[in-house]
Amino acid sequence: MNETKNDLLLRALLRKPVERTPVWIMRQAGRYLPEYRNTRKRAGDFMTLCKTPELACEVTLQPLERFELDAAILFSDILTIPDAMGLGLSIHEGEGPIFAHPVRRPAQIEALAAPDPEDALRYVLDAVRLIRTELKDRVPLIGFSGSPWTLASYMVEGRGSKEFTLVKTLLYENPVALHKLLATVTRSVIDYLNAQILAGAQAVMIFDTWGGLLTTSAYEHFSLDYMHQILDGLIREVDGERVPAVLFTKGGGQWVERIADTGCDAVGLDWTVDIGEARRRVGKRVALQGNMDPAVLYASPDRIREEAGAILARYGHGDGHVFNLGHGIQPGVDPDRVAVLVDAVHELSVSYHRDQKPR
Amino acid sequence: MNETKNDLLLRALLRKPVERTPVWIMRQAGRYLPEYRNTRKRAGDFMTLCKTPELACEVTLQPLERFELDAAILFSDILTIPDAMGLGLSIHEGEGPIFAHPVRRPAQIEALAAPDPEDALRYVLDAVRLIRTELKDRVPLIGFSGSPWTLASYMVEGRGSKEFTLVKTLLYENPVALHKLLATVTRSVIDYLNAQILAGAQAVMIFDTWGGLLTTSAYEHFSLDYMHQILDGLIREVDGERVPAVLFTKGGGQWVERIADTGCDAVGLDWTVDIGEARRRVGKRVALQGNMDPAVLYASPDRIREEAGAILARYGHGDGHVFNLGHGIQPGVDPDRVAVLVDAVHELSVSYHRDQKPR
Repeated sequence: MNETKNDLLLRALLRKPVERTPVWIMRQAGRYLPEYRNTRKRAGDFMTLCKTPELACEVTLQPLERFELDAAILFSDILTIPDAMGLGLSIHEGEGPIFAHPVRRPAQIEALAAPDPEDALRYVLDAVRLIRTELKDRVPLIGFSGSPWTLASYMVEGRGSKEFTLVKTLLYENPVALHKLLATVTRSVIDYLNAQILAGAQAVMIFDTWGGLLTTSAYEHFSLDYMHQILDGLIREVDGERVPAVLFTKGGGQWVERIADTGCDAVGLDWTVDIGEARRRVGKRVALQGNMDPAVLYASPDRIREEAGAILARYGHGDGHVFNLGHGIQPGVDPDRVAVLVDAVHELSVSYHRDQKPR
Repeated sequence: MNETKNDLLLRALLRKPVERTPVWIMRQAGRYLPEYRNTRKRAGDFMTLCKTPELACEVTLQPLERFELDAAILFSDILTIPDAMGLGLSIHEGEGPIFAHPVRRPAQIEALAAPDPEDALRYVLDAVRLIRTELKDRVPLIGFSGSPWTLASYMVEGRGSKEFTLVKTLLYENPVALHKLLATVTRSVIDYLNAQILAGAQAVMIFDTWGGLLTTSAYEHFSLDYMHQILDGLIREVDGERVPAVLFTKGGGQWVERIADTGCDAVGLDWTVDIGEARRRVGKRVALQGNMDPAVLYASPDRIREEAGAILARYGHGDGHVFNLGHGIQPGVDPDRVAVLVDAVHELSVSYHRDQKPR
């Protein structure tokens, strides 16, 4: 493969010197873009979009045509693994994901097997390969997976939930069964992310969307420990290049030190965390990714520039920062505001990297 | 008034010595109780239940008949103030609160006035007086209000929301207008809580349900500062007795030191916070209230006892702990499990208070 032309993301995730802070946006390929909505319409339904590599590639590249983003992220869903396990995923506009066959009884958990990614998840790997070809090394490609706890939550509940009562009842009443489920999912995530890396993903991110619903102790034992196991099982280097791994727990601001201690390269922060305080708490262990409030994108261009500048200032001088939102971009945002944000980060971040020595 | 017979709650909130840890439960008068559902049915709708002092008194006392709780909490809604301002509150089962007249434009904000509690909110104060009479000083009565930020969020959105896009857009685009709204609401909350205290509430709690949706900086300026102003304006002593004030921000685990610095007597913790770590972080400044995961009440009696014991152990020896859930009790809980919890706290907490000197 050719040398990546813009490798700011990879350098920043590894806390190497950069000329400016790289920026990408969670869900940058998504409903706020009219061209995404067109492709989605052509696909018919969301899962067809995910499962057709040509279409997944098309929407992955769309935001890069509009904005000077420093990374592409594979277009897919966090729930592809349970779908490949036979749970029957469907995604309905406004309703979120639904599994036709949720997993609740210990016997159902025992019966689950980790799928072979090159078989049941081949469409994802084909998409990764196609995107890498089409990207022509303009920017790095990020692969991803849901965290074991987040996947298990959906698998038990069968859908999104406010309280996640079923999976929490399992947690308190039959932790052995839940650990068994998490172990199977963890093996699958390792295989899945390693297959994405071998197919061409140059960095990987684990989305722990529901970790923040747990007590501190349950977070450690039912979410973080399994993400730690994933990091221990991941391919961390390909052809002499480090493949950075990012952990993101929504609502995990209390636990950034613990997350940094897993051996990940970077911690994703939601918007509630003060990124300057987080940097002081984690020291030089990891890079930080984030963390503007997605709602800022509803404000005027001047306010967007101001808020972007405030986050860059809070992080401060030196390397190890990847700018992002603190959560996925909302469907109602005007794409022109994204251009304002990306340009603001590029322009305002330069002074924070001038005359910096590598930390 | 007679001396309160069981004043464990008041002593614990003031970090005075107690023989055992007092316990009460957020939303202890609520839908999980069949007798509540009966009264609710008789009332017809939720707001009639709130606005009829005899019925509000009846449901306030119901959980005390069943369980050995150490406090009563006024049955009411957090949104009574905006209702009294003319926003037209209605509460629909499963849908949550809805305002007929949300407040969005600066002119609407300018037009708002703080209501006189003895006029538009007299039904609440009558309920407080009636409950105090009926309680016969068995246990203390807690009064409460929503926080200014939480009230303003509902007032702008007109209903609950996942992203709170409208109020956040106001926050980023027109902070002056939002501060004006928060100032008016803050004056109302001060008047309202002081009227509750004068009517007989022996402790007060401020529920900041949506503070956890803010960035750290926005939390300080748009939520915490206004709660601080409330504390500065509250009647803190009646007839020589301190009236303890508790602040509870859901999702505020990152900010417990800041919350403790407001001058409140106690900080309410949601279930995600490790109460032992929180105690180390706040030192002797405040008492702590919380914080069992409400989902534990779906587990077996043995597991409930175990989790209650774990929280008592994490808080450790000494005073200044009021046991509670980390959020309101869920409607699907079996009332018998609540009895298990209350008895467990009473029994297991004794050893943590034996031979303790006041801190």
